Amino acid sequence: MKQSKWIWKPGDFELYHSMLVHNRRTIQGVYYSPMWRIDPPSPNVLLYKRRDLEKPETLTVYANTDQASFLVNDKRYPVGTTVTLQPGRNFIKLAGYHPNAFPAFYCVGETFASDESWKFGSFGARDLHAGTNDMYTELSDRPEIFKFSYERISPVSSEQINGGILYDFGKETFGKLIFENLSEDVCVTAVCGESREEALSDEEAIVYVPVKSENGGFVSSAVAFRYVFVPALPCEYSFSADYEYLPFKQKGTFRSDDALINKIWDVAEYTLRLNAREGFFDGLKRDRWIWGGDAYQSYFVNYYLMNDQDIVRRTQRMLRGENPVTMHINTIADYTFYWIAAMWEYYFHTGDIGFIHTSYPHMLTTMNFVTSRLDEDGLYTKRRGDWVFVDWTEFFDPDSGPLCAEQMLLCRAYDCMAKCSALVEDGKNAEKFTALKEKLYEKINALYWDEEKNAFIDDYRTGNRNVTRHANIFALLYQLTTPDRLQKIIRHVIQNPEIPAITTPYFEFFELDAMCGIGEFSYMTDMLRSYWGGMLEQGATTFWEEYFPEKSRVENYAMYGKAYGRSLCHAWGASPIYLLGKYALGVRPTAPAYQTYEVRPNLMCFGTFEGTVPAGNGLIRVKMDKESVTVLSDIEGGTLILGTQKYSIEKNIPLTIAIEN
Amino acid sequence: MKQSKWIWKPGDFELYHSMLVHNRRTIQGVYYSPMWRIDPPSPNVLLYKRRDLEKPETLTVYANTDQASFLVNDKRYPVGTTVTLQPGRNFIKLAGYHPNAFPAFYCVGETFASDESWKFGSFGARDLHAGTNDMYTELSDRPEIFKFSYERISPVSSEQINGGILYDFGKETFGKLIFENLSEDVCVTAVCGESREEALSDEEAIVYVPVKSENGGFVSSAVAFRYVFVPALPCEYSFSADYEYLPFKQKGTFRSDDALINKIWDVAEYTLRLNAREGFFDGLKRDRWIWGGDAYQSYFVNYYLMNDQDIVRRTQRMLRGENPVTMHINTIADYTFYWIAAMWEYYFHTGDIGFIHTSYPHMLTTMNFVTSRLDEDGLYTKRRGDWVFVDWTEFFDPDSGPLCAEQMLLCRAYDCMAKCSALVEDGKNAEKFTALKEKLYEKINALYWDEEKNAFIDDYRTGNRNVTRHANIFALLYQLTTPDRLQKIIRHVIQNPEIPAITTPYFEFFELDAMCGIGEFSYMTDMLRSYWGGMLEQGATTFWEEYFPEKSRVENYAMYGKAYGRSLCHAWGASPIYLLGKYALGVRPTAPAYQTYEVRPNLMCFGTFEGTVPAGNGLIRVKMDKESVTVLSDIEGGTLILGTQKYSIEKNIPLTIAIEN
Repeated sequence: MKQSKWIWKPGDFELYHSMLVHNRRTIQGVYYSPMWRIDPPSPNVLLYKRRDLEKPETLTVYANTDQASFLVNDKRYPVGTTVTLQPGRNFIKLAGYHPNAFPAFYCVGETFASDESWKFGSFGARDLHAGTNDMYTELSDRPEIFKFSYERISPVSSEQINGGILYDFGKETFGKLIFENLSEDVCVTAVCGESREEALSDEEAIVYVPVKSENGGFVSSAVAFRYVFVPALPCEYSFSADYEYLPFKQKGTFRSDDALINKIWDVAEYTLRLNAREGFFDGLKRDRWIWGGDAYQSYFVNYYLMNDQDIVRRTQRMLRGENPVTMHINTIADYTFYWIAAMWEYYFHTGDIGFIHTSYPHMLTTMNFVTSRLDEDGLYTKRRGDWVFVDWTEFFDPDSGPLCAEQMLLCRAYDCMAKCSALVEDGKNAEKFTALKEKLYEKINALYWDEEKNAFIDDYRTGNRNVTRHANIFALLYQLTTPDRLQKIIRHVIQNPEIPAITTPYFEFFELDAMCGIGEFSYMTDMLRSYWGGMLEQGATTFWEEYFPEKSRVENYAMYGKAYGRSLCHAWGASPIYLLGKYALGVRPTAPAYQTYEVRPNLMCFGTFEGTVPAGNGLIRVKMDKESVTVLSDIEGGTLILGTQKYSIEKNIPLTIAIEN
Repeated sequence: MKQSKWIWKPGDFELYHSMLVHNRRTIQGVYYSPMWRIDPPSPNVLLYKRRDLEKPETLTVYANTDQASFLVNDKRYPVGTTVTLQPGRNFIKLAGYHPNAFPAFYCVGETFASDESWKFGSFGARDLHAGTNDMYTELSDRPEIFKFSYERISPVSSEQINGGILYDFGKETFGKLIFENLSEDVCVTAVCGESREEALSDEEAIVYVPVKSENGGFVSSAVAFRYVFVPALPCEYSFSADYEYLPFKQKGTFRSDDALINKIWDVAEYTLRLNAREGFFDGLKRDRWIWGGDAYQSYFVNYYLMNDQDIVRRTQRMLRGENPVTMHINTIADYTFYWIAAMWEYYFHTGDIGFIHTSYPHMLTTMNFVTSRLDEDGLYTKRRGDWVFVDWTEFFDPDSGPLCAEQMLLCRAYDCMAKCSALVEDGKNAEKFTALKEKLYEKINALYWDEEKNAFIDDYRTGNRNVTRHANIFALLYQLTTPDRLQKIIRHVIQNPEIPAITTPYFEFFELDAMCGIGEFSYMTDMLRSYWGGMLEQGATTFWEEYFPEKSRVENYAMYGKAYGRSLCHAWGASPIYLLGKYALGVRPTAPAYQTYEVRPNLMCFGTFEGTVPAGNGLIRVKMDKESVTVLSDIEGGTLILGTQKYSIEKNIPLTIAIEN
C-alpha cells in the first residue's frame, strides 16, 4: 500500500495549533489574553478526489472524529469502513465535523491513499490541495496533538529552603513537571524560575504550576524553567521533568579557536532550539507567542542552523491568520512588513515555490490592507490600533508621525512583494509593487535625508531632526539610498559613538548584519564577546530578551515593571549563528535555493575555524586558518571568493586554496 | 443589584448553536454532512465597557471558561474575583478563550452588570454591542447549552413484535429516549419511526438510537419519533422519553364550526411547535437543518401564532453564517432572495429596527454576492454550485436557463433591500436597489410574458414556452406586472385546471396566499379539507413534507429513493394558521409593527369562527358568524373593513357590527 498522510483543510493545522499556542499564556496562574484576533480552524470540512480505476481496489477511511463519513460515488459509509472500489470513475468525498479541533482524515488504499493529491472543497471559493504535514503519516498519529519528542530529565541539584525544596535543572529548559509517589492530599503551587531568585519569589515569579495529586502522581502542562521551588509536601515524592522538544537535525556548525565565541554559538543554538516549537516563539517563559519580528530573525538563524522549511511555513501561516485583515500582524506595522519580506526570503533560501503560490492570495490581501491605510504621500503612518515597534527603545516617539524606519521596511516589503508577484507570474502586481517601491524610495530620500546631519532622520515633520541608528541601518541593509549617502551613513551614524547604541539583541541582529555587510567584522566579534559574552558572565544558559551591560545580574531580570518580567530565553538572541555562518564561514546563496552560491570566508579575529552551512538540500563545509581555506560542498553552483580571486567549487571535491599573506 | 445577562460576541450564540444543529444529522447512525459551509464562533473574545463612577461599587466577573480573565484599568484579575471599583473612570475589559464553544461572561454589579451596553472589541473592524439572549439571565445558565424545557412522556401503548417491543407514543414527538433499570450488558440499537412501518424496518428506518447501559440506565440525545422499536433486552426495564421543547406562548388561535378545519389548525400548530427550536427547522426527523425557504414560511406562521421575534432573528443569523459569502444560503439562490425579503417582513411585522441595523452589513455583502453573479441582462442565472429549487417539481428543468420564478424572487429581494436601506438611512443604496428592482421588473415583463399564453413562461430562451403556476403565483403575490396581466394570469393560469397542480405544502403556501389575495377563499378552504385533510385521513399527527392524494399511506412515506425518506413533520405544512389568520380572521398590518392594521374578516365556508392574532405587543380577537362580527383589540390603529364599509377599532373596546345579508 502507498504511504498515507493525514489530510485536512489547508491551513487548519496551523490555525488550530496557533489557537492553542496563543491561549496558553498565564501570569501567576491567571489567563493572559492575546492582543489580536485568533482565527479558528473550520469545524466542517469536505475533501475529495476523483480517479478512474482499471481494476478493483480497496479503500479504508479513518477520521479523527466520530462525526464523519465518506461517500463513494454518492453512497455514504461510516468512517472505519473498508469499501471495494470498482473499475471506472470513482469520486470519493470525505466529510467531517470536529467539535473542538479540526477534522482530519486518513485513507488507506492504493490510488486513494490520503495525501496532497486530494482536494479541499471550499463551498464556492477556491478549491485547494489538502493540507498535510510530514509529521503525521501514521494512522495512530493525531494531528490535533502537536508531535513533540520527550526526554526524561532530572534536577542537577536541590536545596532545602523557605520550608520547601528548590530544584535546579542546571540550565534553562522546557517541559512537563513530573511528580511521583504523591499522597492523595497533595494540592500546592510550585513556582518556576528562569533564575534562582524568581523561583524563590512567589510574589514576583511569572510561572505557577498547580500541583494536585491524581492517582498518586502529577504531570503538569509544559512550562519553561531552570529552577523549580516546591513547597513542603505531606509525603516523600520523586521529582523530574519531561523535556519537550522537536528533534531538529542540527546541520549548521561552527567551531573556532575562540572558546568564548564557541560557547556563544552553542548557547545561541540551544536558545533557538528551545523556541523552535509549533512555530518560532519569541521567548519561552512568558509569552510563548509568535511575534512577527522575533520570528523573522529566527528564520535567518534557521537557514544557517537546521534549515527546516516546515517551521517557517507554519510560523508564517500562524502569524497571518485568516481574512478579513483588520489589523497588522500582532498589531505591529513593522511585523506585517517583515511577514511579506519573509515570504521572498523563504523562497530565496529554499526554492519552495509551492508555498508562495499557496500564500499569495493572503499576501495580496495583506498588502491591500497596508496600502489602504497610507497617508497622502504614500507613507505608512500610525492608525488607531496600530503599534509601531521598530525596537524596544525610547530614542524616538512612535506617536510623532510617519517614522523613517517604517517607510524603509515598507519599501523592503514592496520589493519582496514585487518579486513574489513575478514569481507566481502575476505581472500586473509585479509592476504595481515595483512602482510603489520606486515611488517610496524617492519619497524616503526626499523627505528624510538630512544634508547637514548626513543621515536619515526619524521624522521629517517634527523639525527636531533626530537621528537614530535604526533607519540608517535599514538603509544600509536594504540599499535604500545612493552609494554616496551610504558612505555618509557609515561615517556619520554607524561609526559615530555619539549616536546612541543599540540595547537589544533584536536590533543588534540588524546592526551587526549591516556592519558585517560593510566589512566591520571586528565590530561584530567584539559585540559578541562583550554583549553576548556579558550575558554569559551573568550566568545566562540561554540568551535574553534585553541586556544592559551596566546593570547587575538581578537588575537585568526586570522588565515591563516586573522584577522577573524579562525573558531569559529569547529567540532573537540567537543571531550569532547567522552572523558567523554568513560572514565568517561566508556562505550565502546568490540564486534561489542555492542554485548558485558564494563562499567568502573571513578569518576575522580567529586563528582557525571550521563549520558547516545547510544549503538547500546540501551541506557546505568551510575550514579556514591563516594558511589556507578548504571548502567541501555536496551541491553544484558554488564559487569560493578570496579577495579578488574566484574559484569554482566542484561538488563533493574538497577545494583547498592557500592564503597569500 | 441590576439584573445581569450573559454576554458574548454578537452572533456567536447563533453560530455556535447552528454549528451543533447542522452537525447532528445521521442516517442509520452514520454522520450526514451539511452541504454548505458552517462557520464557527470566535474562540477568543474581548468585551469592554467604560464608565465614570461617583462612588465605589463592587464588580464580580464570571465566565463559561477557565481560560478567561478581566482587567480593571489594565490590572488583570482571574474570573470569579470580586473587585471594588473606585470613583472616577473605570475601564473594564473581559478576555476569554473557549476551546470548544464560545466565550461568554456574566458580570454582577450595578453599573457594570453585563448586558447589551457592553461592547465587543473587534480587533480593528467595527466594534458592536455585546450579544445577549433573554433566555440566559442567571449565573447558573450556560449559553453553550440551548435552554429547552422538558416534560416526561410515556408510550400510550406497546406490543411484542419481531422479538422486541414496539412502543407507540400516540403522535409524532421529539425528545430523549430514557431507559431505566438496565443491566450492565445492554448494548442494542433502538429504531425510531414516524410511522409504525418505519420503526419496524431496521433496514429502511432513518433514525437509529444506540442504547448502551451506563450506570443502569441510558438517556439518548433528542430524536424525532412516534414509534420506537426496542429489541429484546436481557433485563426488565422501564422506557419513557423526555419531550424537549421551547415553551412558546401560543397567542394565535382559531376555532370554527368546522371540526376538520379546527383539527387541521391544531395539527399545524403542533407541527410548527415541534420544528421551532434553535431556529425554525425544515423537519424533525431527517435533516433538522435550517433551510431558508422552509424557515421563510415558518416566519409567516409565527407572526400569526406565537409572534416570537427571537426565533426569527436566530434563524436569520444561522442561515447567513459569516463572511465571505461564497455560496447562496443553503446553496439555493431562491433561499438567498427569501432571506433578504424576510428581513423587511420581520421589520414590518415587529418594528424591530435594531435587528435591521445589526444585520444590514450582512445584507449588503449578501446582495453584493448576488449582483456579482448576474448575466448581461441583469438576470439571475444558475452558476456552478448553485441550486435552483423553486419547488420539488419536475415541471421545469432548473438547468435550462434563467427561470422566471427566480427573477421574480430577485425582484422581491431588491424591493425589500431598498426598503431596508431606506430604513437605516442608506439613501444611496435605497436608490440603487430601487433602480435594480425597476429595471428587473421591466426585463421580466419584456422577456417572460407570453401574449398568446396570457402568462409568464418559465424560460424565454428555450423556445418551449412552458407555463407553470410558480412564476405566475409570484407575479400575483408580489404584483410584478400590470393589473391587466394579473387578470389574465388569474384566468389563464390560476383558474386553469390544465396547468399542473401544486404537489407540496410548501408551494401551496404561496398558491393559497395568492388565491386568497384574489378572493378565491373556497379554493383555499377546499384545499385545506382535501389536501391537509387527506394527510389526516392517512393518519398524520403532524403535516408532511410532501403528499400525493392518489398514493397510499405507506407509499406516501417514501421520498429521495428511500422507503421512509419523507419527513412526516415538516414545518412548511403549518401554513393554514397563516392563511386562516390573515384571510378568515382577516388581520394584517398596514404599517410596521401594527402601528396601523386592518381587519377584513371573511366567513368563507364557515358558519361561525372566533380567533386571535398577535399584533406587535398586542392581541386582536375576531369573532364572526352570519349575523355579526366582533373585534376586540388591545392596541391602537385598527380599522375593521366589511365590504366597502370601514369602522375604526378603539383600543380595548369591543366593536360589533351587524352583517347585512
